[in-house]
Amino acid sequence: MRIDIITVLPELLKSPFEASILKRAIDKGLVEVHFHNLRDYTDKSYNQVDDYQFGGGAGMVLMVEPIDKCISNLKSQRNYDEVIYMTPDGETLNQKLANRLSLKENIILLCGHYKGVDQRVRDLFITKEISVGDYVLSGGELGAAILCDAVIRLIPGVLSNETSALTDTFQDNLLAPPIYTRPAEYKGHKVPEILLSGNFPKIEEWRENQAIKRTEELRPDLLE
Amino acid sequence: MRIDIITVLPELLKSPFEASILKRAIDKGLVEVHFHNLRDYTDKSYNQVDDYQFGGGAGMVLMVEPIDKCISNLKSQRNYDEVIYMTPDGETLNQKLANRLSLKENIILLCGHYKGVDQRVRDLFITKEISVGDYVLSGGELGAAILCDAVIRLIPGVLSNETSALTDTFQDNLLAPPIYTRPAEYKGHKVPEILLSGNFPKIEEWRENQAIKRTEELRPDLLE
Repeated sequence: MRIDIITVLPELLKSPFEASILKRAIDKGLVEVHFHNLRDYTDKSYNQVDDYQFGGGAGMVLMVEPIDKCISNLKSQRNYDEVIYMTPDGETLNQKLANRLSLKENIILLCGHYKGVDQRVRDLFITKEISVGDYVLSGGELGAAILCDAVIRLIPGVLSNETSALTDTFQDNLLAPPIYTRPAEYKGHKVPEILLSGNFPKIEEWRENQAIKRTEELRPDLLE
Repeated sequence: MRIDIITVLPELLKSPFEASILKRAIDKGLVEVHFHNLRDYTDKSYNQVDDYQFGGGAGMVLMVEPIDKCISNLKSQRNYDEVIYMTPDGETLNQKLANRLSLKENIILLCGHYKGVDQRVRDLFITKEISVGDYVLSGGELGAAILCDAVIRLIPGVLSNETSALTDTFQDNLLAPPIYTRPAEYKGHKVPEILLSGNFPKIEEWRENQAIKRTEELRPDLLE
């Protein structure tokens, strides 16, 4: 899989891709992630890529031309399955959408910044708009990092133990059951006895019941 | 506002706090963000902070003791309004919750990693569990970065123009209207004429109508 991220702040995105699972996935060659600085695609002075809104109002808007140039340049080199714009009014990212995206070959992620991008960018170049949640961020960069993390960890071979992703919260529309590790007793607080019993069928049953109970209590909407 | 982030991967979190709005908010002294490496709070060899699950199963679990030590150490120095655990089964972050959190004085954010934390951590120390969305990430770090971004930009003085946050998507339960910037015509694609009219009451009316229309089309749930 190849992911091209277009941003005015590539430096903001650095560290999440240089640590932990994303770094390992890149090092193993399971995914390629390329950053493109939008300022490299403008002819304007001071590398200007944004301007005031037509009609007045606070906040700057990313201009259509540099984005057009950057996307066109990428598209001239390979085919892309999706050109995704990270925006709070896009389709809300969930585990199902992450699963689907993990099967793609090449995707472009466009990060807005400040107020967002000129509407013509969305009309002309974007094939999918994705939101990571119902809140506003300073830009699309952290949303893009979240999307990459959610998607890349699902690519076979990225997690050392594949069952680790399959037993995660949401993969079966259930929240995960409570988990415990050593010590069996901490300041008087004990691990549930069943987990120490070694009776694995019973443990599985307990976990399933706990997962259902937790989901009913905290997120009944997932069971509908 | 002061935010203390507890993590096993402080290096993953570096760049988002060293760029753009978060950096400026920190530089201006409007918010303090401190990272705490959980590995500094363990007595075990190799700075071990996680262990296998009781009852079997893939994935490592963060142990209760180092987390207890770190949180207790912080609490001995000041009062915290909330000790928040970032987890996909927590309360879903939205703009309302971000607004509420932006009024707090001191908060702790605990990032899980791998499978998560020992349930006793959640039972004993956590006052609030927050999810940034219905998807699974490699750890709580990117969720914590998202939460910080969503919250910190709402603190008065952080954005250069305060109206910029107030006109954002979600602040009034509406998606933002389309925005445009120069040029007025790009490869034959024109900006809506009304925005060039200079008739500001009419422009406001158009924007309001567009916001309602977009919300009805894309996110009718927000209007309920």
